[in-house]
Amino acid sequence: MPGESAPRGEGFETRRLEAFADGVLAIAITLLVLGVQLPGQTGDLVAALASRWPSYVAYVTSFLTIGIIWVNHHLLFTLIDRTTRTFLMVNVIFLMTVAFLPYPTAIVAQRLASGSDEAAAAVFYGLTMVAIALMFNVLWEYASREGRLLRADVDRSSLRRGTLSYRLGPITYLVCSAVSVWLPLVGVLLFAALAVFWILPISSPAN
Amino acid sequence: MPGESAPRGEGFETRRLEAFADGVLAIAITLLVLGVQLPGQTGDLVAALASRWPSYVAYVTSFLTIGIIWVNHHLLFTLIDRTTRTFLMVNVIFLMTVAFLPYPTAIVAQRLASGSDEAAAAVFYGLTMVAIALMFNVLWEYASREGRLLRADVDRSSLRRGTLSYRLGPITYLVCSAVSVWLPLVGVLLFAALAVFWILPISSPAN
Amino acid sequence: MPGESAPRGEGFETRRLEAFADGVLAIAITLLVLGVQLPGQTGDLVAALASRWPSYVAYVTSFLTIGIIWVNHHLLFTLIDRTTRTFLMVNVIFLMTVAFLPYPTAIVAQRLASGSDEAAAAVFYGLTMVAIALMFNVLWEYASREGRLLRADVDRSSLRRGTLSYRLGPITYLVCSAVSVWLPLVGVLLFAALAVFWILPISSPAN
Amino acid sequence: MPGESAPRGEGFETRRLEAFADGVLAIAITLLVLGVQLPGQTGDLVAALASRWPSYVAYVTSFLTIGIIWVNHHLLFTLIDRTTRTFLMVNVIFLMTVAFLPYPTAIVAQRLASGSDEAAAAVFYGLTMVAIALMFNVLWEYASREGRLLRADVDRSSLRRGTLSYRLGPITYLVCSAVSVWLPLVGVLLFAALAVFWILPISSPAN
Repeated sequence: MPGESAPRGEGFETRRLEAFADGVLAIAITLLVLGVQLPGQTGDLVAALASRWPSYVAYVTSFLTIGIIWVNHHLLFTLIDRTTRTFLMVNVIFLMTVAFLPYPTAIVAQRLASGSDEAAAAVFYGLTMVAIALMFNVLWEYASREGRLLRADVDRSSLRRGTLSYRLGPITYLVCSAVSVWLPLVGVLLFAALAVFWILPISSPAN
Repeated sequence: MPGESAPRGEGFETRRLEAFADGVLAIAITLLVLGVQLPGQTGDLVAALASRWPSYVAYVTSFLTIGIIWVNHHLLFTLIDRTTRTFLMVNVIFLMTVAFLPYPTAIVAQRLASGSDEAAAAVFYGLTMVAIALMFNVLWEYASREGRLLRADVDRSSLRRGTLSYRLGPITYLVCSAVSVWLPLVGVLLFAALAVFWILPISSPAN
Repeated sequence: MPGESAPRGEGFETRRLEAFADGVLAIAITLLVLGVQLPGQTGDLVAALASRWPSYVAYVTSFLTIGIIWVNHHLLFTLIDRTTRTFLMVNVIFLMTVAFLPYPTAIVAQRLASGSDEAAAAVFYGLTMVAIALMFNVLWEYASREGRLLRADVDRSSLRRGTLSYRLGPITYLVCSAVSVWLPLVGVLLFAALAVFWILPISSPAN
Repeated sequence: MPGESAPRGEGFETRRLEAFADGVLAIAITLLVLGVQLPGQTGDLVAALASRWPSYVAYVTSFLTIGIIWVNHHLLFTLIDRTTRTFLMVNVIFLMTVAFLPYPTAIVAQRLASGSDEAAAAVFYGLTMVAIALMFNVLWEYASREGRLLRADVDRSSLRRGTLSYRLGPITYLVCSAVSVWLPLVGVLLFAALAVFWILPISSPAN
């Protein structure tokens, strides 16, 4: 493959990886609005909009979640300064999980509205979150293991704290998914609460 | 979080924030066309297209409005030269309100066409505009308060004029929303007129 | 407006304008595939795909047309090196016409397939092309008049040739739209032929 | 055309070409999720999700395939450092084939689920892959023939290996398409296996 003639020892620069990730995350986040069901062309609009509250909860939760993913991806790449072909591929698989989120988001909104099989919908939504958080850890592991793709001046002790905080992601989402089995609405509201919590400055006091 | 090892005192650069915002705004503006209802596959096409005039009014109004938001966001970032994690999050919430606009745009087009509950649709549309304008002010307040994220050479007196002009946004949209309660079509045409006015050079004579 | 404190005399740089235009054009071009009607979930697939030939003609024509618009926009900005607030707005209005193209593209595909009111569909498609070409001329006029936004080293005589060739755009599209009144399929094939001709190297021999 | 006054001898820079390609590829890859059919608003969700397995296979296959195309396009442009108007157009035609992929992806998912005319759907999907791979070769041929658009320091022997490996693409996809005539599901799983194989580090050991 032509890529074989690219600089090898130190990998190559990350500009297009970041641009592509920004593109996919920006599109996935903006497509979420297509999952908010339109009311009919006639009939009581206020009632129709009010009955779609699960769509709004799901929209806000998924939007803030992808937003946080973008912020974290962005912060990661203030530490990473090169890439390899394998890392590009890991990034593609990570994006595949995020780009899938509009699908369970639309399903959870529909099922919370109709009251039919809400638990299955909330668990499916939660497991997609788990997959995203797992892939984020794979991405981070690949880049940071022995400082493989990191800038030379990155502080190792803060890395360790970062790694630990990322590892909490999949576990937290798994717990919320488990809650959803019995209390689907509570599970979804927990996902929303997590998104709101992580978006607040308190979740990372020093910044 | 890894972000904790990013440069702190002066924040970090805004390139990816701008790229992500450009992406979301470009996608939201381009998705508007999906809200313009296709006529049937057969039947009188001219009549069908003519009856869809509210879709075209709504398309032009929302397109120009998001366009103006993009221009203003762009102008803002000629003054801002760094970001913090919190500012990234504020930006995500701001984008969440803009990315929602295709939904009330499609609703107001449908309801003006069907004549059913037009007022509720126009008010819902207007309140989304209010939310966008409010979040734009939050974004600007956060960045400009005590010059937090501004370039060192920014002229303070022109800042004050800018702040005042931005504060008019939510109030103006609120007034148009109030008009929509009694005269929904007039309200929507006022939103259109505002977009056209703001897009004309006269609204900012010096440029 | 804060923009008032941006550098005035020579305008400001065009990076974000180009990024935003690239975004809108990339999205509009990629959304075209959503207008290609899916066949049913069962039934003879080959026959269903074959009967959708107008969708493929419309897809290719609009894709190549937006592609050419992107190439021309790109070439324009190798000559332009600064922008003003007004020019940003002119660019937004230009993009509004391009982003609308998926709508008449879907309509012309449907109507050529159903054979109902094909002429109206082809004319509507053609007039959208005329509007795009007109706005492209406005964009170019605004930037090039008295060299307003051009690089200092741009060769004036080649500019004049460029201006003349751009002016042919709206006229050519208007002629094809007129043909579509009587021969809608021929009109659409002329739009396709123009796109193919303009995409070939022969249309610009020196490059 | 104004482009005629752009630097000629050595072509012009590739930044916007890459940005536009990143945009189209990011959008096409993210639109794939719209082709995953939503289950109904009521009824057994687990059974409905399980019956949609062909949608997930098709989503993963097409996502990884576009991801690999993006990685290869990216690697190509670490070797290419200038463009011409013709090369921009070749790139547009290449993107036209990739942006079409969501359409056959949705069709193959529907037909594998319904069991009706699966072979035609899988062959149509495969032939789109062949078209993409062919256009990728045209892109590479145009850029690399006699080093036309390549960086001066590119190693010729690794180029030759790259060219050979790219040429295997269309042939491999054609073979899988042929298999699909008799064994459509096997054909689709072969496309999936190819995507997984190419995404693994083993397919390019040195990186």
